[in-house]
Amino acid sequence: MVIVMAPDAGPSDVTAVVTRVEAAGGEAFVSRGVSRTIIGLIGDVDVFAGLNLSAMRGVGNVTRISTSYKLVSREHHPDRSVVHVRGVPIGPGTVTLIAGPCAVETPEQTLAAARMAQAAGATLLRGGAFKPRTSPYSFQGLGEAGLKMLANVREETGLPIVTEVVGAHEVDLVAEYADMLQVGTRNMQNFALLQAVGAVGKPVMLKRGMNATIEEWLMAAEYIAQRGNLGIVLCERGIRTFETATRNTLDVSAVPVAQRLSHLPVIVDPSHSGGRRDLVLPLARAGIVAGADGLIVDVHPQPDVALCDGPQALVAADLGELSRAIDDLTFYMGRLPSRRRFPRAS
Amino acid sequence: MVIVMAPDAGPSDVTAVVTRVEAAGGEAFVSRGVSRTIIGLIGDVDVFAGLNLSAMRGVGNVTRISTSYKLVSREHHPDRSVVHVRGVPIGPGTVTLIAGPCAVETPEQTLAAARMAQAAGATLLRGGAFKPRTSPYSFQGLGEAGLKMLANVREETGLPIVTEVVGAHEVDLVAEYADMLQVGTRNMQNFALLQAVGAVGKPVMLKRGMNATIEEWLMAAEYIAQRGNLGIVLCERGIRTFETATRNTLDVSAVPVAQRLSHLPVIVDPSHSGGRRDLVLPLARAGIVAGADGLIVDVHPQPDVALCDGPQALVAADLGELSRAIDDLTFYMGRLPSRRRFPRAS
Amino acid sequence: MVIVMAPDAGPSDVTAVVTRVEAAGGEAFVSRGVSRTIIGLIGDVDVFAGLNLSAMRGVGNVTRISTSYKLVSREHHPDRSVVHVRGVPIGPGTVTLIAGPCAVETPEQTLAAARMAQAAGATLLRGGAFKPRTSPYSFQGLGEAGLKMLANVREETGLPIVTEVVGAHEVDLVAEYADMLQVGTRNMQNFALLQAVGAVGKPVMLKRGMNATIEEWLMAAEYIAQRGNLGIVLCERGIRTFETATRNTLDVSAVPVAQRLSHLPVIVDPSHSGGRRDLVLPLARAGIVAGADGLIVDVHPQPDVALCDGPQALVAADLGELSRAIDDLTFYMGRLPSRRRFPRAS
Amino acid sequence: MVIVMAPDAGPSDVTAVVTRVEAAGGEAFVSRGVSRTIIGLIGDVDVFAGLNLSAMRGVGNVTRISTSYKLVSREHHPDRSVVHVRGVPIGPGTVTLIAGPCAVETPEQTLAAARMAQAAGATLLRGGAFKPRTSPYSFQGLGEAGLKMLANVREETGLPIVTEVVGAHEVDLVAEYADMLQVGTRNMQNFALLQAVGAVGKPVMLKRGMNATIEEWLMAAEYIAQRGNLGIVLCERGIRTFETATRNTLDVSAVPVAQRLSHLPVIVDPSHSGGRRDLVLPLARAGIVAGADGLIVDVHPQPDVALCDGPQALVAADLGELSRAIDDLTFYMGRLPSRRRFPRAS
Repeated sequence: MVIVMAPDAGPSDVTAVVTRVEAAGGEAFVSRGVSRTIIGLIGDVDVFAGLNLSAMRGVGNVTRISTSYKLVSREHHPDRSVVHVRGVPIGPGTVTLIAGPCAVETPEQTLAAARMAQAAGATLLRGGAFKPRTSPYSFQGLGEAGLKMLANVREETGLPIVTEVVGAHEVDLVAEYADMLQVGTRNMQNFALLQAVGAVGKPVMLKRGMNATIEEWLMAAEYIAQRGNLGIVLCERGIRTFETATRNTLDVSAVPVAQRLSHLPVIVDPSHSGGRRDLVLPLARAGIVAGADGLIVDVHPQPDVALCDGPQALVAADLGELSRAIDDLTFYMGRLPSRRRFPRAS
Repeated sequence: MVIVMAPDAGPSDVTAVVTRVEAAGGEAFVSRGVSRTIIGLIGDVDVFAGLNLSAMRGVGNVTRISTSYKLVSREHHPDRSVVHVRGVPIGPGTVTLIAGPCAVETPEQTLAAARMAQAAGATLLRGGAFKPRTSPYSFQGLGEAGLKMLANVREETGLPIVTEVVGAHEVDLVAEYADMLQVGTRNMQNFALLQAVGAVGKPVMLKRGMNATIEEWLMAAEYIAQRGNLGIVLCERGIRTFETATRNTLDVSAVPVAQRLSHLPVIVDPSHSGGRRDLVLPLARAGIVAGADGLIVDVHPQPDVALCDGPQALVAADLGELSRAIDDLTFYMGRLPSRRRFPRAS
Repeated sequence: MVIVMAPDAGPSDVTAVVTRVEAAGGEAFVSRGVSRTIIGLIGDVDVFAGLNLSAMRGVGNVTRISTSYKLVSREHHPDRSVVHVRGVPIGPGTVTLIAGPCAVETPEQTLAAARMAQAAGATLLRGGAFKPRTSPYSFQGLGEAGLKMLANVREETGLPIVTEVVGAHEVDLVAEYADMLQVGTRNMQNFALLQAVGAVGKPVMLKRGMNATIEEWLMAAEYIAQRGNLGIVLCERGIRTFETATRNTLDVSAVPVAQRLSHLPVIVDPSHSGGRRDLVLPLARAGIVAGADGLIVDVHPQPDVALCDGPQALVAADLGELSRAIDDLTFYMGRLPSRRRFPRAS
Repeated sequence: MVIVMAPDAGPSDVTAVVTRVEAAGGEAFVSRGVSRTIIGLIGDVDVFAGLNLSAMRGVGNVTRISTSYKLVSREHHPDRSVVHVRGVPIGPGTVTLIAGPCAVETPEQTLAAARMAQAAGATLLRGGAFKPRTSPYSFQGLGEAGLKMLANVREETGLPIVTEVVGAHEVDLVAEYADMLQVGTRNMQNFALLQAVGAVGKPVMLKRGMNATIEEWLMAAEYIAQRGNLGIVLCERGIRTFETATRNTLDVSAVPVAQRLSHLPVIVDPSHSGGRRDLVLPLARAGIVAGADGLIVDVHPQPDVALCDGPQALVAADLGELSRAIDDLTFYMGRLPSRRRFPRAS
């Protein structure tokens, strides 16, 4: 059961609903959107039906629903959402470029990559300090030292930071430094992590599990939303198929499909899906015209010595063409580059 | 082993090579491209090495190769090919729109669909008379009666015809009517059919098997090329994955990957991959900017009564937007719509 | 719509039904089983409903059904079928071993492999004369010369022959020599071929497409059954997944699932599914206790020099253990080895 | 780099190696097996090469290796391991049955299920108190209250407990009650969780990710082993494929393949793979004869009212046949049921 509060409902109205639901043995999850507050109920629907919730002050609409996700569904929230990361918008009016190194290695490499990203039009800096690696013998990231390097680069460049968190117990630490928390493909169904990032009150980028259906992805987003955090950006990054010419198969259809089911922004990762530098540009273009609200791209000043995913990182020489493509196709889609709206991203 | 003949090699030069190879117990497959003739050899490579083929008149280049496809490979044919279907080009300079009904049902429906296609800028008419259907209890197509309807509509509209052939024994019959033969996804490894369409001397559209790797797809094309037919257009139409929100998953990366490996044109089918009308436009756009040389799209005057794949067919009202998108993105990609070059396609 | 004729219905009863259905514009497909004849109808169900078919002489039962396969369904044929190949039974009472070389190469190799197979308890000889190969540059089989070798070996050993047919136009040729026709995984949806083997009146082994669902497999079998041939044996041979440690993934669940849906026998190919010699024994055991009605196994006197799939072929030294496993687990499953029943298979 | 210590190496020998490695800037992970201690090194291999480690006291063997898993590899540990769970062995000599309810719901249901399990020959009780659920609106388990119920049932029946842990922060809590910790399929690459269960010193059952290759599964096990815990049992539970007739596809080949690569025991879950009660028995049989070291099976006194995965749970009436099958096939495989060896499991 989901309750959409009226536009003019106040905090005390919300509290009253929650109190009544809990008194009846149910649980109420409150999510505050830009214009509306939504309350998701868990418990006995027949009991809720007897509470006369629709008659309470501030309640706009009460619906019995059967889908497995409610708060992130577009059914009760027809307008697509905009998520702001320190003032940088990700949503239906813009195409936001997030760029940076796969892994933070040194201050110099991070700053050089950030400068490259910025020159290409990026308004958010990506960079991994905690790396989830399939083999325990691969480079696992610099940890907090890497977060500090990112923070210094933010200071220097004004670019807000997007960085991955790989365990629930590290969420608080990462959130101290990051402007947006990333949940990676291998953790899409790490429910403890989803709940932890939901509770922390910073925007979250949720990458699609490489084996997850779109519906499972939205249910994972619902775990975050249930803790009161609707600042979620979905990221399509390729799914696992039998094809071996590419690392994964970019499911470009997932962009319009997810946008039809959910009000959350959807971006595309053309670097990790193909796993090949030569595919970044065509997949970036394809993502934008399929309707993506942004891109996240690996760049590295010297990919040959990168500690992580070097073969797919763009170098400086690639960025001019990418930048022009983003500009042109953003315009074609009737959107604005997010940088034009926000000349200083800090 | 593959022999690329010199640009000025004559037919007698080719014959001389073939004769020498066959005399040594080998087989020689001759394929004539626009500017060059290529001869693929099968047999004992060590024997061939003793034939001194590179010294023969007209021989440009002899290479020992290990890939499983030669004639369709870009290695020996770096320029991307253009395939002409009754004068309509499919290739790197254009974005060709092929449209029409999934299945030919009646003369009226076929003509109406062809008029819709033409109004949207299509220069080739698709339409199935022989339908490979998973269930034997589904509509199997009208057979030769359907081919005749297509021929009448060609007469009426000037649109050359692309139609499917499902069995080797029907190739001659279908080739009497068709301008381009289509080999469907379920027949991509029907080697008898591939050889038959290779022998018939009409252009062929080879759809990717829904479970085929890109390499297997190129090896299937090689079967056609071996019989002397290099007029092959590859068509990406979605692969089978675990995702159920779409009928298949359009592998948009396959376009640049296949174009890098092969000189053959690659087009995209946004209708069958997604299986949903609302996805045709975003997937068509994505295909073009990924570099596709054309699109093949289902249209139907009344999809609700279609005997085949109604849910994905575009109606007249959808076509204006598709047509504009193709125009704009074709221009963006620095190409020409194939219709502008060839105002009358017949 | 499907009609199950009464046990005592005669040929003239069947003819009368067919005549009435065709007069009404429908098509009738007659399939004669061991105890019952089944007639599948295609056409307008409402028209058929007006024909009063259930009142005709010999008609046992008329059902309107919605499944996409009828004749092979267990719904109207609850007893599981036995298919006989020159007297060798494949069905619920036995576990039949089919063994032989992947490809027929020479008379000596074929005879040696047949002797190995026979010593291991095989009652049917497999061997490919026409090989569907992904690359046109791989060995394609010896063609009719190979069929003749197989026939000679049958003469010598008394083992009936199972061999693949790859094109509709070759069905008659192959059927002259073969006792059972095999349709391979790449041809499972080659509908022209299915119809041709359905018409020829010899038992057929239908391998599951490596990308086919169980339902699609049964629909493919229905194409054969529609032409009057119910002598169909289904063969699970592995499906394509993301796992690369094995060539394909044996879907052992498919055995009980298919047997629940269809009355046709189901056997397992432990050689091609895993593609590794060391997996043949465990997968063979797994297949039998999952309920398989038989096994088909590659053997080769010298796998190191095999022209096709050498890495998976068993050698003489492997066969004792396989043979004992089959004996023991056949007994465990309450079945008989098919050889005990038929000491001489000719 | 991996060091296998000599059988007679003492703790001080191990410490000496670790000290030298760490002094050189490397990390050393010590894992004590039954007969041997293995030390995995991470860091600069060239530096290690200069340490003359092979000359140190107690060092048996030093190898430079390139695989991504070392401690769980069979390369340096050719004998297959036995893992003991409160005295109940899981390993190459036995076939251990683990059974119980998917989710702990009430004390009565848990006790009834445990009695069913025990009657069927189970020597370990499974039951979920923390449930990772795709939708946040599904039953999430009783948490610690459920663990207490399990502990009470252990008291009553003597059956050691296997239960799932879903977050790194709950490992200590779950380990207080559990005899074996289960890491579920969705958490196979939750590296923080893997490290936490590796540190806690209780046996771990690691389910294969439904999208994980066998190699990735072993690398996940390596994360656990690196923290000093080699008491790991691998569990094949089905992989995600295109087939929809079963919930997942049991990859029965994974049993022999994983056993060849790793010394760890491998068991099979016939309940979750198929997701259908009617498949549990055939898949259990298939698992045993493929070489599985045990089975884990869902049972429920009243599956119709189960809060989780009811459709696949066995009822009392099914268990006699399962129990007999396990007995017979365990004997056939030359193994012992684990209960015969340990008449009282407490």
